[in-house]
Amino acid sequence: MIGIVIVSHSHLLAQGVREMALQMSQNLVKIEAAGGVDDQTIGTSAERIHQAITQAYSPDGVLILFDLGSALFSTQMAVEMLPPEQQAQTKVSAAHLVEGAIVAAVEASLGHSLEEVNNAAEAVKEMQKII
Amino acid sequence: MIGIVIVSHSHLLAQGVREMALQMSQNLVKIEAAGGVDDQTIGTSAERIHQAITQAYSPDGVLILFDLGSALFSTQMAVEMLPPEQQAQTKVSAAHLVEGAIVAAVEASLGHSLEEVNNAAEAVKEMQKII
Repeated sequence: MIGIVIVSHSHLLAQGVREMALQMSQNLVKIEAAGGVDDQTIGTSAERIHQAITQAYSPDGVLILFDLGSALFSTQMAVEMLPPEQQAQTKVSAAHLVEGAIVAAVEASLGHSLEEVNNAAEAVKEMQKII
Repeated sequence: MIGIVIVSHSHLLAQGVREMALQMSQNLVKIEAAGGVDDQTIGTSAERIHQAITQAYSPDGVLILFDLGSALFSTQMAVEMLPPEQQAQTKVSAAHLVEGAIVAAVEASLGHSLEEVNNAAEAVKEMQKII
C-alpha cells in the first residue's frame, strides 16, 4: 500500500489534512504531515519533508501533496535526499491539497498503485463542490 | 473589505488555513475558522459556522470556503440563521479550500468585491501547481 505525505507552509494545516485523510482511509494508510519550518513558523523545511517521506515510505511508493508552489522547491530537495530506488517510487502530485489528499487516502486504502492514486487525486480539479 | 470563513471537518485544518490565509493577506482581512464539531471531533457544526460568519461579517460581505460536500449542508443551515440582509451578502464558494482561501485572502486584502474575490478563488481550479 502506498504512503502519503502532506506538505504545507503551516504545521497546523498539514496536521489537519493528515487527521482528515487518516479518518477517510479508516487509518489503513500511512499518512505523514510535514508542515511549517517548525511547529510555529510558517514555511517549509526540506529536512522535515524528507523525514516524513522516510516514515511514509514502502516499496509501493509515496505520494506527496503540497499547498503552494513555493513548497515545491523544498519538496524536490527532500526527494533528492532519498536513495535512487526510493526516488523512483516517490511522486509529487499536482492535486489540490485537501480535496486531493482525501481522494488519495481513500484510493490508497483500496490498494491502488502510486500512479492510479495520483491520477484520482489530480482529477479533483474537475470536481464540482457545489452542484 | 469582505470577510472570509473557512469551514472544515477538522478544527486543526480550519485553523491552519486561517493562519496561512491571514499571513497572505498581511493580516488585513477578517478571516475566521469554523472547523470540527468541537476542537477534537471531526465533523461540522452549523452553530460554529454561524458564529464565524457573524464574526467575519461586514456590509461588504463574507465568502465561505469549505472542505467536503458534507460540510455544505451545515454551512447552508448556518447561512439561513442570519438575518435576510446578511444572507444576501454571504456567498458559499465552490473553490478548492487551501488554494482558494489563499487567493481569496489576497484578493480581499486588495479591497475587491465579494463576487470578484469568489471568481478569483474559484479560478484556482485551473491553476497549474506544477509547471
